Amino acid sequence: MTTRLLSRSLKTMAGTKKFNFTPNKYFTENTAKDVWSLTNEAAALAATNPHNKGRELINLGQGFFSYSPPQFAIKEAQKALDIPLVNQYSPTRGRVSLLNALIKQYTPIYGSELKQENVTITTGANEGILSCLMGLLNAGDEVIVFEPFFDQYISNIELMGGKIVYVPINPPKELDQRVTEGTEWTVDMEQFKNAITSKTKAVIINTPHNPIGKVFTREELLQIGNICVEKNVIIISDEVYEHLYFTDEFTRIATLSPEIGQLTLTVGSAGKTFAATGWRIGWVISLNSELLQYVSKAHTRICFASPSPLQEACANSINDALESNYFEKMRQEYIQKFKIFTSVFEELGLPYTKPEGTYFVLADFSKVKIPEDYPYPKEILNKGKDFRISHWLINELGVVAIPPTEFYIKEHEKAAENLLRFAVCKEDSYLEKAVERLSLLKDYI
Amino acid sequence: MTTRLLSRSLKTMAGTKKFNFTPNKYFTENTAKDVWSLTNEAAALAATNPHNKGRELINLGQGFFSYSPPQFAIKEAQKALDIPLVNQYSPTRGRVSLLNALIKQYTPIYGSELKQENVTITTGANEGILSCLMGLLNAGDEVIVFEPFFDQYISNIELMGGKIVYVPINPPKELDQRVTEGTEWTVDMEQFKNAITSKTKAVIINTPHNPIGKVFTREELLQIGNICVEKNVIIISDEVYEHLYFTDEFTRIATLSPEIGQLTLTVGSAGKTFAATGWRIGWVISLNSELLQYVSKAHTRICFASPSPLQEACANSINDALESNYFEKMRQEYIQKFKIFTSVFEELGLPYTKPEGTYFVLADFSKVKIPEDYPYPKEILNKGKDFRISHWLINELGVVAIPPTEFYIKEHEKAAENLLRFAVCKEDSYLEKAVERLSLLKDYI
Repeated sequence: MTTRLLSRSLKTMAGTKKFNFTPNKYFTENTAKDVWSLTNEAAALAATNPHNKGRELINLGQGFFSYSPPQFAIKEAQKALDIPLVNQYSPTRGRVSLLNALIKQYTPIYGSELKQENVTITTGANEGILSCLMGLLNAGDEVIVFEPFFDQYISNIELMGGKIVYVPINPPKELDQRVTEGTEWTVDMEQFKNAITSKTKAVIINTPHNPIGKVFTREELLQIGNICVEKNVIIISDEVYEHLYFTDEFTRIATLSPEIGQLTLTVGSAGKTFAATGWRIGWVISLNSELLQYVSKAHTRICFASPSPLQEACANSINDALESNYFEKMRQEYIQKFKIFTSVFEELGLPYTKPEGTYFVLADFSKVKIPEDYPYPKEILNKGKDFRISHWLINELGVVAIPPTEFYIKEHEKAAENLLRFAVCKEDSYLEKAVERLSLLKDYI
Repeated sequence: MTTRLLSRSLKTMAGTKKFNFTPNKYFTENTAKDVWSLTNEAAALAATNPHNKGRELINLGQGFFSYSPPQFAIKEAQKALDIPLVNQYSPTRGRVSLLNALIKQYTPIYGSELKQENVTITTGANEGILSCLMGLLNAGDEVIVFEPFFDQYISNIELMGGKIVYVPINPPKELDQRVTEGTEWTVDMEQFKNAITSKTKAVIINTPHNPIGKVFTREELLQIGNICVEKNVIIISDEVYEHLYFTDEFTRIATLSPEIGQLTLTVGSAGKTFAATGWRIGWVISLNSELLQYVSKAHTRICFASPSPLQEACANSINDALESNYFEKMRQEYIQKFKIFTSVFEELGLPYTKPEGTYFVLADFSKVKIPEDYPYPKEILNKGKDFRISHWLINELGVVAIPPTEFYIKEHEKAAENLLRFAVCKEDSYLEKAVERLSLLKDYI
């Protein structure tokens, strides 16, 4: 009774009180719902559509794995929890066991003996990117972002008082006509060079690239890197999909020359590596330990330290993975997953960009005829056409995909308005179901 | 051979290259080593002192638990890892299971039916505080911090472009004369009120208080709360030691009136609650869901989501703890720990403040005679006298404690220059060894 009374009086007070507050203006100026929320809400709504009655919703939206991390990783985490001190704070820079495992993993790749000062652990790659930006940016600094971009970069740069300069990754001309290659998505290097001003602090690159699935070539990265050396621009290289490349080689920009290496911060993710997006362990590696220390300082102020038992689990899992050739096996599995999934686009004759990396496919829906008068929710009407395609696909076919104009600024979203991004980090049997469902599209082509 | 060559050429390049960068100026303007690093380095050095040969170092410095989380919590974490989807992203706001467990725990305490919109999960209380500040602050906003303060508040406010206004918690006059009580450390409410300007966005309070061990009284909190209501100031209440109070009651400011409740963000920590500081799970609770949504938005941009298996473990552990009366048992254990540990100060006649809460004790070392010409490392010479006492204690007695002037600004550090902070979150047998070791102080009194 007391509880009830208090609760009611509270409501009354809340209704009449004059309490005002002005939150961080970034959040009042950026109120649009993000694509993840919109898509999840559409998915929830889709269940009420008669078409979907008794039908499983096929969710290829957000990039989470439908399956468990490998058993060895789970076992390592369970074992770590049994050690009392592994449940307490780790050093802010990361557990020595994990630093050493990463040194062991990356030293042959970098062709240079890494030391502990070349690695810092973060609470996921997300916080790794934020730590890079917080460590480096002063108000007014410019950061170059290639478009399409992972949406997190934008908020992180702006929250740190930075200004974003967009440089497009130009799509292939025949994107809506035929199956294209990642290499056909290109950066105009002159445009990139011209985007650099005296205020440019950094550029963010992402390879393998989400959402395109492009793996930047050695030549492209060398051009970008050399421009950065010439212009004194720091490179933040988001390489979270590093083990998911299906080209002959995966080039890391930091390794292309000693000068480029000195300018580069490379971000990695245990979540992507071990199919454990919920573990929140990432890292930043740099051959330039002086540069890296600012990332580390920022991380200390953001999260203090990262989860200890999961760090320990990652340390031992990396060692296990190196011994068992796990990373190569995962690549082979993903080649198979893409083969299963893209077969439906081949069958339907829907153009897509052949994924060279990541676990995403961009498919072009220009040929799919969607009724003009379909009832769309208000909040997506001012968004790109792809939001409507996505909404229709969820409702009519029960398949969730992400509208990629979310990875573009408003002015440029035409480039992606007929595309949808599908995540294939799912069990093969689930992908087979997705293929079966998507083949229903033939009635709309 | 190739590796070696590359590595050397890299070094040469690093030596000759002209690459320059300006990091976030916050980090170049705040280069002093933090107390945790200094103390750890002193501890490492202490091992080389002949006094410490073959003697175990007694570490009562940083507040990490020397023992394991309770078995039920470990088991819940191990079980959670076996569920495939519990290894993937959680909702940014937190797992429903954990939101519900916290609602169950706090609803009777708040005397008001909490809903999911009243709770948001963060990656430790540390990131919870940062999320509050990032969600609320615009450049130039002022935040009032009571001094002594937890050092994290300072960097977090400044990194978000805020300005700190310090209001002292005045020490008892006879701090160095006799055993004192937490209630003798007092806030001058007029001074607090006068510190509020039109730019004041928030005040941070911490109860039970680290490092004093003070539990703010209902009367004190009501005065602070009413001033905040009058002046429209948001209250960030850091209550991470909520289960460690040894007074008759622990008052939560959010519950004192509906108006105060509408202004308050309360930060909690699973790390402190379950002796698992390495799990990095915290939460922010507010009766004002509109206010809280900005914390949640900031958290999404900082860490995206918090570690899933550890969230699930906390959810189930809270339910287990409520059933087994774990929180009350922990309190009783800590009353015992303080009894064991403070006995040495009673025996030596060293004044200390009786802890009303937390797992820290502040003891006054004015009476301990430390040789004037003791060889101190350079980097602590410009720090408070307590840094020298701490250094001496580590080297001569092999006991690590934290110099609390780190919790003061330079101008005010006189207030704490004879104090040391000891953490008792250790096994009883370890505390007994600490007592034995500290009793050697009798030769210096």
